[in-house]
Amino acid sequence: MNGAESLIRTLIDAGVNVCFANPGTTEMPMVRAIDEVAGMRAVLCLFEGVATGAADGHARMSEKPGLTLLHLGPGFANGIAYLHDARRARSPIINLIGEHATWHLAADAPLTSDIESLARPVSAWVRRNKSAEALAEDAAEAIAVALQKNGQIATLIIPHDCQMDAASVPVAVGSIPSPPKVGEDAIKQAAEALRRDEPKVLFLGGYAMRERGLKAAARIAAATGCKLMCETFPARWERGAGTPIIERLPYFPEAAIAAISPYKSVTLAGARSPVSFFGYPGVPSYFISPEQQTVVLATPEDDVTDALEELADALGAPMNIDQNSAAQIPPRPSGKLTPETLSAAVASLLPEYAIVMDESNTSMAPFLAMSQSAARHTVLTQPGGAIGLGPPCATGAAIACPDRVVVNLQADGSAMYTLQALWTQAREQLNVKTIILNNRSYRILGIELMRAGVKEFGKQAQQLIGLTQPAIDWVSLAKGMGVPGVRVETADDLVKEFERSLAEAGPRLIEAIL
Amino acid sequence: MNGAESLIRTLIDAGVNVCFANPGTTEMPMVRAIDEVAGMRAVLCLFEGVATGAADGHARMSEKPGLTLLHLGPGFANGIAYLHDARRARSPIINLIGEHATWHLAADAPLTSDIESLARPVSAWVRRNKSAEALAEDAAEAIAVALQKNGQIATLIIPHDCQMDAASVPVAVGSIPSPPKVGEDAIKQAAEALRRDEPKVLFLGGYAMRERGLKAAARIAAATGCKLMCETFPARWERGAGTPIIERLPYFPEAAIAAISPYKSVTLAGARSPVSFFGYPGVPSYFISPEQQTVVLATPEDDVTDALEELADALGAPMNIDQNSAAQIPPRPSGKLTPETLSAAVASLLPEYAIVMDESNTSMAPFLAMSQSAARHTVLTQPGGAIGLGPPCATGAAIACPDRVVVNLQADGSAMYTLQALWTQAREQLNVKTIILNNRSYRILGIELMRAGVKEFGKQAQQLIGLTQPAIDWVSLAKGMGVPGVRVETADDLVKEFERSLAEAGPRLIEAIL
Repeated sequence: MNGAESLIRTLIDAGVNVCFANPGTTEMPMVRAIDEVAGMRAVLCLFEGVATGAADGHARMSEKPGLTLLHLGPGFANGIAYLHDARRARSPIINLIGEHATWHLAADAPLTSDIESLARPVSAWVRRNKSAEALAEDAAEAIAVALQKNGQIATLIIPHDCQMDAASVPVAVGSIPSPPKVGEDAIKQAAEALRRDEPKVLFLGGYAMRERGLKAAARIAAATGCKLMCETFPARWERGAGTPIIERLPYFPEAAIAAISPYKSVTLAGARSPVSFFGYPGVPSYFISPEQQTVVLATPEDDVTDALEELADALGAPMNIDQNSAAQIPPRPSGKLTPETLSAAVASLLPEYAIVMDESNTSMAPFLAMSQSAARHTVLTQPGGAIGLGPPCATGAAIACPDRVVVNLQADGSAMYTLQALWTQAREQLNVKTIILNNRSYRILGIELMRAGVKEFGKQAQQLIGLTQPAIDWVSLAKGMGVPGVRVETADDLVKEFERSLAEAGPRLIEAIL
Repeated sequence: MNGAESLIRTLIDAGVNVCFANPGTTEMPMVRAIDEVAGMRAVLCLFEGVATGAADGHARMSEKPGLTLLHLGPGFANGIAYLHDARRARSPIINLIGEHATWHLAADAPLTSDIESLARPVSAWVRRNKSAEALAEDAAEAIAVALQKNGQIATLIIPHDCQMDAASVPVAVGSIPSPPKVGEDAIKQAAEALRRDEPKVLFLGGYAMRERGLKAAARIAAATGCKLMCETFPARWERGAGTPIIERLPYFPEAAIAAISPYKSVTLAGARSPVSFFGYPGVPSYFISPEQQTVVLATPEDDVTDALEELADALGAPMNIDQNSAAQIPPRPSGKLTPETLSAAVASLLPEYAIVMDESNTSMAPFLAMSQSAARHTVLTQPGGAIGLGPPCATGAAIACPDRVVVNLQADGSAMYTLQALWTQAREQLNVKTIILNNRSYRILGIELMRAGVKEFGKQAQQLIGLTQPAIDWVSLAKGMGVPGVRVETADDLVKEFERSLAEAGPRLIEAIL
């Protein structure tokens, strides 16, 4: 057995058995090991940002570490943006990066670079493997690190010769410490704040947004009358009929402050104290004012599910809350494509247990409110703000959940970053239905310029915001990647084509011209 | 005047007047300044790798700093791979990265990251601007750094508030130190080695491959009978009829060692001592053996042009060498598409002063030999090995040289990394003719696996190398981006379509099915 084989076997034995890969020469022994050892599924991605974004989506939906195989510093660099998103999502990720042979590094060959410096900003743990014998041990540690504190990124740099040299048996991963339990004081403080007869909010984020956390949150709301609110970009949000109705914090700071300011206390459960996405002059960074009480029930790293259940018990909350149980499906829309009709089209047709990768940005603002009582579904968003996550994240989610439909609501400007994901969807015949929201602009930047007081855009600013000249033809792009596509210009056609795409297996793309 | 305006004015005053941009919210004051100050051309790129690769191509052809405008850490990260190439190419580049407002950083907003750690591996100079007042000074220093030592990368991180605060006048760039002159000893040693009556080679790289350096190299060869050889991936190589014939060092180490080992001495002029692209067991990193004499005439950072001219004078070389002066155009090929017919088609039709961005990788090995006496042209390659540079680098070169045709010989697997460059070519109506070499695989990886002794590829290895299932349809991808395209399957059709594309203005894509 060589180092690469001991590595791959260690991963498979720990249940890490899907690898999103864009390998090169320095990873060939690992490719060979994947070929020779049964049990690892290799998914080729034609750009590393697709590999890392897919690993993130896979991790969010499988609750196992997402695995990438990347080529040296430049290959890893191409994946950093979506590791940034994954880090903010607290997704467990393991990156395997092939490196030049130890004896070849000093030659400073063309592809040599400082991989550690590139990896640190997105990794909780970076290790350079020292020998084939240590490789299985390093892999086991990477797995353990990835799974701690609800999810972290572990990056393992593996020299070519260490992959090839002789190694012994794979290593079993030791017991993984659970995320820290919160102390009694935190439960007590939260209970006190939530019992008070005043406007109060339980502010949810991170792992609180999954099934068990939401069930406990609903109990707490029933017992105390508190408002349930959540962070603007949750990593994974279980929602639709049968889940509690939760108000999402608005994106722009003025609206966010207006939404949260009526509450005398804010109890944070798995969420950080919410901050502005960007700093605007005269607007504070933090949305909770010093006059409001902030109670930290659980940080994003803590065991928030357990904390919420303990809190519900401490409050003497009833066990089962029958909340939002009657599905309310909006009627199928007709007429022009607007944020409302787009949202209604998707919400009305959403199949049960669909996974919605929502990178709709400015085009579908009403969707979350409209779908809150639609069929039970999961929403994924971008906690890190690196645009273009949608197509790869949808890809990884579809591989994790082959029995569920993935709907990717996708802004056009963002989609251009990672359109290569469509090819992987075609190759793997994934059940991803992409709706491209083609407004032919970086609309958000126009809004931001107006916010900054610009009344009329000059030619250069228009050049930097508009995606016309030429208009991007997404049906052709999808065809080029092997994904059948269709263009729609009315809500009626969107309904018809979305319904048809749901009835067919495999990836489909609908280009909605706004 | 605000900080952003003083920055943009400083750049324009120094002649840096094209900006390859993918801005976001934190860069809006710079976008506004570009809008309001006359003289800066903003070129929108729909992915940051296109922006950095285009800045590299622009710098190589304009001999001025290439300028990028990028969004925070994740936006910058998307551009790192081609900055890696640009660093190895010694292209002068200035990166402007917008950052959160200074007062907002502590809030650790979603897009916050350690930009310096990401920037250092590809930058000779990284600075975080401290105030609007200092911004013009910082820009002037970035320009000066970029232009030193033949070309370096300067990265300037600019907080949003510093862009907006009041600033004074722009700053003029001080005198830039020329690249270091080489000492008399180096000239003397080189002259001694080259005068010896034994097999000897003058090994060229970097800035030695431009017009003046080549003229001096030809004189030296005429005076001493030395062989002229060059590095495998020169950043910019002036070639074709009227330029000296130079043998390019082969890619694989065994062939490279066989090519260089007959020479008793190797005189390095603007090139590093050549090393293997990857480390292979049993093959040395360095190609020059300890038994051969290595003479460093000039490092890549030195003024190699001056050194070559001084050396030619010291050798009493004749002033004007009439070498390779009779153009030898290969006949137009016919029949199947093979490396030979592909190369002949391009070499036979190459217009005078074409710029050839050569990322043909495995598909067109004979091209360089076949074109050495073709019409005078410039070849650009990838000194850093980060694949996908071709389309963006061609884009930047076309903007730098609007009167020249750019031919991008482009491997399909690599092209998928940066296909968004086609959109910028369409928008700017650039004279780029892309020939996609569609072998439907990462062919090089198959070769590498065979080199590693794998006789038969298993299913997983095939999955990681093959780009079939589905086959990528480049004509549709080009159409989606607004570039007219056509598919060819024979050399006859390639000749016909390439000739037609050259007769038309604007970007064209030819997909050659191999």
